[in-house]
Amino acid sequence: MAEPIRFYFDVISPYAYLAFRALPAIAARHGRAIELEPILFAALLDHHGQKGPAEIPAKRAYLMKDVVRKAHALSVSPVAPPPSHPFSPLLALRAILAVEGEARRKAAEALFSAVWGGGPGVETPAVVEARLTEAGLDGAAIVERTKDAGLKARLRDGTARAIEAGVFGVPTMLVDGELFFGVDSLPFLEQFLEGRDPVSAEDVARWATLPASASRI
Amino acid sequence: MAEPIRFYFDVISPYAYLAFRALPAIAARHGRAIELEPILFAALLDHHGQKGPAEIPAKRAYLMKDVVRKAHALSVSPVAPPPSHPFSPLLALRAILAVEGEARRKAAEALFSAVWGGGPGVETPAVVEARLTEAGLDGAAIVERTKDAGLKARLRDGTARAIEAGVFGVPTMLVDGELFFGVDSLPFLEQFLEGRDPVSAEDVARWATLPASASRI
Repeated sequence: MAEPIRFYFDVISPYAYLAFRALPAIAARHGRAIELEPILFAALLDHHGQKGPAEIPAKRAYLMKDVVRKAHALSVSPVAPPPSHPFSPLLALRAILAVEGEARRKAAEALFSAVWGGGPGVETPAVVEARLTEAGLDGAAIVERTKDAGLKARLRDGTARAIEAGVFGVPTMLVDGELFFGVDSLPFLEQFLEGRDPVSAEDVARWATLPASASRI
Repeated sequence: MAEPIRFYFDVISPYAYLAFRALPAIAARHGRAIELEPILFAALLDHHGQKGPAEIPAKRAYLMKDVVRKAHALSVSPVAPPPSHPFSPLLALRAILAVEGEARRKAAEALFSAVWGGGPGVETPAVVEARLTEAGLDGAAIVERTKDAGLKARLRDGTARAIEAGVFGVPTMLVDGELFFGVDSLPFLEQFLEGRDPVSAEDVARWATLPASASRI
């Protein structure tokens, strides 16, 4: 049985939304399941001492144009900004983590489209409950479970494990020990699944052992 | 006369190397000249309080694989790491800025391939002089000019002007008032030159006026 593709994401990222919509066709072509791994992008940025793309004004101005162009290239529609951004994705991430398997996929689909598909966002328990219920899930029960301390800890632990696995951004796809970062890497993921990855062990080893001769720090 | 494509780059960036190699075919297809604008990537990072991709260990480990995959997709060959990285690109950037037009293109080609094309790097005046001379330029005279305070100031000023123009990373292509960031944006640049950019003024305006409801800071 082939390993699933682990998909690390946060609903705050429009690039994660695009990859979430584009990944199933790739996985299906190669007989791979998808395991959805919600993580907190802000915790990754804190860990790496890095700013997110929407936290640098010049990059933020560019970001939505880039997202519209990438959505167009991937035939992902609709794509539109949420009512506010940045916003706290914690409630949505916990709701997605509260359920498993196909229910998790439905929850992620419902909440991603509430954020980046022209929906009402995911900032209040009422709107999250309504979107989950519309998706055929027990919205009230799921929102109740988001308050559970054990579930909150699972989101933190899952994020920490992702960092340990080398994840530095979202979306990241992990399969057969190989990480693919960003929606731009989907063609490389597919190439890898086809056994046509052009990266050699020599490329990796040579880069890993390179000395630095200058540093900004 | 159509406006040229301004190409903002630093030889420290392998993505800038890939775009430098891939851009001429796109520019030629659309009757556009290329203006090469060497800038100091480290100054952009300092300005935006951001880390470069090679400054985050997990991202650094991924970077060379990503570069090899992108080089393969763009049919750019050879691609290989320089003798050390990070290194100071100042000497190379000043040498490129010291000449104009076709001489600047030759200097950039010679020094980019010294870094990312399997060459000896660009860290000493001797190696830079030799590479420029092999490219048919007056290497000794150019290296002499890199010591000039006026030329050093021009590199700083050019970097500051790029930041004012909204440049937040390398490579960036600027044409007809529109910025395209990263080697991944080359297809979007071409689409724009063909008059098929899917971005609408509404997309831009809506994103620009979005409120924030949460922030990490």
